[in-house]
Amino acid sequence: MEKYRGLSPAQFFHRNKEIAGFSNPARALYQTVRELVENSLDATETHGILPDISVEISLDPSNQDKVTVKVADNGIGIPIHEIPNVFGRVFYGSKYVVRQTRGVFGLGVKMAVLYAQMTTAQPIYVKSAPRNSEFIGEYLLYIDVDKNIPHIVKMRIKKKDNPKIHGTVVRLTLEGSWLQAKKRIEEYIRRTALIAPYATIKYKTPDEELIFRRVSKKLPEPPRIGRYHPKGVDVEILKELIRSLNDHSITLQDFLVKSFEGVGEKIASEFIVWAGFDPSLKVKELRLSDLEALASKMRTFDKWRRPRPVTLSPIGEELLKDGVKNILKPSFVKAVTRPPSSYGGHPFIVEVAVAYGGEIPPQDQPMVLRFANKMPLLYDEGVDVSRKVVNEIDWSVYKVKFPAPLAVITHVCSTKIPFKGVGKEAIADVPELEHELEIAIREAARRLRSYITRMERLHEIQRKEATIRRYMPEVVSSLAEILSLDAALLESKLEEILKKELGKKGVEQHVVS
Amino acid sequence: MEKYRGLSPAQFFHRNKEIAGFSNPARALYQTVRELVENSLDATETHGILPDISVEISLDPSNQDKVTVKVADNGIGIPIHEIPNVFGRVFYGSKYVVRQTRGVFGLGVKMAVLYAQMTTAQPIYVKSAPRNSEFIGEYLLYIDVDKNIPHIVKMRIKKKDNPKIHGTVVRLTLEGSWLQAKKRIEEYIRRTALIAPYATIKYKTPDEELIFRRVSKKLPEPPRIGRYHPKGVDVEILKELIRSLNDHSITLQDFLVKSFEGVGEKIASEFIVWAGFDPSLKVKELRLSDLEALASKMRTFDKWRRPRPVTLSPIGEELLKDGVKNILKPSFVKAVTRPPSSYGGHPFIVEVAVAYGGEIPPQDQPMVLRFANKMPLLYDEGVDVSRKVVNEIDWSVYKVKFPAPLAVITHVCSTKIPFKGVGKEAIADVPELEHELEIAIREAARRLRSYITRMERLHEIQRKEATIRRYMPEVVSSLAEILSLDAALLESKLEEILKKELGKKGVEQHVVS
Repeated sequence: MEKYRGLSPAQFFHRNKEIAGFSNPARALYQTVRELVENSLDATETHGILPDISVEISLDPSNQDKVTVKVADNGIGIPIHEIPNVFGRVFYGSKYVVRQTRGVFGLGVKMAVLYAQMTTAQPIYVKSAPRNSEFIGEYLLYIDVDKNIPHIVKMRIKKKDNPKIHGTVVRLTLEGSWLQAKKRIEEYIRRTALIAPYATIKYKTPDEELIFRRVSKKLPEPPRIGRYHPKGVDVEILKELIRSLNDHSITLQDFLVKSFEGVGEKIASEFIVWAGFDPSLKVKELRLSDLEALASKMRTFDKWRRPRPVTLSPIGEELLKDGVKNILKPSFVKAVTRPPSSYGGHPFIVEVAVAYGGEIPPQDQPMVLRFANKMPLLYDEGVDVSRKVVNEIDWSVYKVKFPAPLAVITHVCSTKIPFKGVGKEAIADVPELEHELEIAIREAARRLRSYITRMERLHEIQRKEATIRRYMPEVVSSLAEILSLDAALLESKLEEILKKELGKKGVEQHVVS
Repeated sequence: MEKYRGLSPAQFFHRNKEIAGFSNPARALYQTVRELVENSLDATETHGILPDISVEISLDPSNQDKVTVKVADNGIGIPIHEIPNVFGRVFYGSKYVVRQTRGVFGLGVKMAVLYAQMTTAQPIYVKSAPRNSEFIGEYLLYIDVDKNIPHIVKMRIKKKDNPKIHGTVVRLTLEGSWLQAKKRIEEYIRRTALIAPYATIKYKTPDEELIFRRVSKKLPEPPRIGRYHPKGVDVEILKELIRSLNDHSITLQDFLVKSFEGVGEKIASEFIVWAGFDPSLKVKELRLSDLEALASKMRTFDKWRRPRPVTLSPIGEELLKDGVKNILKPSFVKAVTRPPSSYGGHPFIVEVAVAYGGEIPPQDQPMVLRFANKMPLLYDEGVDVSRKVVNEIDWSVYKVKFPAPLAVITHVCSTKIPFKGVGKEAIADVPELEHELEIAIREAARRLRSYITRMERLHEIQRKEATIRRYMPEVVSSLAEILSLDAALLESKLEEILKKELGKKGVEQHVVS
């Protein structure tokens, strides 16, 4: 006889920690840092605060595999009564809305807590000073895995000394492999600094101390919370939306206009006629079979307006350029932010930068730095759509000769990044997305070609100048003798002509366009 | 101000259906068939029943994207009162034990139900006749996503006509892409028939009707439910095990011996001394910090016995050979089942078959058919350890010249298959596993070399025979003339000699060893 039983969500993820990327001590450490940093960024820039984030990693002197990670930010903080659930209950959080966020599954920090307590039995320490509150909350807690509820070991609430202070500090100790993870974590922090040049990130580890200072005080427009687009609905979403309506007399027409993105009165009417529904139908009275028909018609109707990008927050050409200059230190960079586009019912925006020369090391193929919703993607580059697009471009058209100091930076933002699989490390080759990426990269690459052309010309001129200078003394002395002129005067005249001619064709040496 | 809320497990997976492979209509259909077939196999062979499984896929005549999948089996059935939760509650089931099962996350069928109801609003139909019960239960139900509880639309319990009947029928209708999925689903069924040659599988679709009849009535030894191995524990597992003890006076020594795999009295004592614990310590009195030290010491102690493979169920060389012969119809096949091995605290067994010739189409590289816990793996072959090992072998050593009709079948069984990522489609290159795979493939390949050598010799002889026969009439007539002999007699004598000589070196044409 088989025994049947239920699992709590925490028990499930304890058994299947790979789902959230906690597959081994190196990956778990990387993932922990990443989840905490991303929460900190979401708590700051999304709310109009210039991020100040500090990341500290330290090892237990008596056991190098016990790693403590501490991340502090100046974000909006967490309402004190919500802290236990936010850290101690799987499937609880603030990210379950239609908006661009870094987190994808909303699981991250709970997985970090679970992993910490299953490997070192240590609770998580959280201190949070919410904005617009007079208090600071301090908790020591772990997850009661059986019941999926927070177990509070210690708590304290105190009054703020300075009412203007806000932010959160999180600290936890897990079994991690610092030696194996450190390169990737540092790379992750560097790339985060690239994509968020308005953030100051302090990074302190057993091996080094780095500060990435903000190079800009301009924050990108934060994403707003949006509504579902009709192309992206299913029966369960319809049920949920209809259940949340208070008004029992609301008609299909009104429901469509009020509950969805991209649906005006006119399009709603047109849809209702096309789909064969009665416009005065009350949605609260729809049967399950009606809902199925409605969802299926909504998905196939092709006259909805494109989803608007208000839920998105691209970083913009200027900031992207600043970030690339600051981190990669190239001699050329061109950034392109494409207009919004969409796939299925999901809006997306592609941003690209092409950087060349300077401190970028020459390589046999273009270096690709990928970002999704401002998160660096470090794994699975080989199967990512960006790598595919970059490799399909014939770079010789743009005068690039490999090995070349060429980097392509891609940033995709969307309310639903089409990740390949659940590792959230590679983006699938959705045709709309691939198309946008290609246009953006080619636009930037055309500027690169002009730059390389100018640089070639400059080198050519420099070569000529060098040649002329080498023979000048001889020419001057011969000419002076033949024409019986003063050699010094002749030389200064010739020098003048030379400079004028070179100046015509020349360009400044460092073009950062 | 951020809004915080909780999600039910069903809501979570509704939003993140990619986690369980339900990423698009083609994949969702494939995944649905797969989950149902695997449940049927687990309900039969694991309990000593020769599987009779029927799979039926049909399309809605008025909407080809609405696909109904029906799977019926002669398994042990599901206790009638458990049916609603087994199909209608995420995180509920019978697979949460230490044993080799096909399912990995125990999510499968609930995801199929969720996907069906979100795309077609149809409930799932389940009929089950449990073994050792007089009754049959019939349900029509869906998942109340908000509450993660089953919502029963209809139910009926009736008495069995024949008390010996047992089994389960499941039917659901989802939005799926049959055109895009059918090739893969058929391949999945074929490969399932290969690895389970003791099963009869009927497969009926809009395009064809196939029957894979069992070629053997021998079932592999079913896996038993095992205990955790001390190398695989963490603090949460220790907590759970200790909590389940009724006896408050149980000591650490007894706890280790009784609750774990591979721990005898002697090794337990040795461990306790090595780890610096007091052997008379009562485990119910251990503090959290003790548990952490205990878990960490248990993971690092290196004298535990290897995990025993009682929890595993390899199919064995004979059945594997039968399966390969039946499906691939090669002219040569050699199967190898390796002795049990382990990685971390997880036992595993590798089985391999090398097949050659016959109906295998010649290809530029070896065809690789991968299985894990008797499940065919169809995606992500490029990153699987089996492909890696096969590609690293220099097949010319084994006399294989490409293009060659060569197939390598690999089967890994373990209580914990080290899947790469969560797609459960590719196995990671754990060194212990890689080693076992290589040994097994090389052993089978050596037999292949002998076979190819014999075949080459046979062909050589055939070539010689053909040559001799071509010139025989002339030789005979010339000799007959010179020696004044009777030509017919001479020819029959020569023919005799020829046959005798060829017979010495010859081999039967078809060697299936």
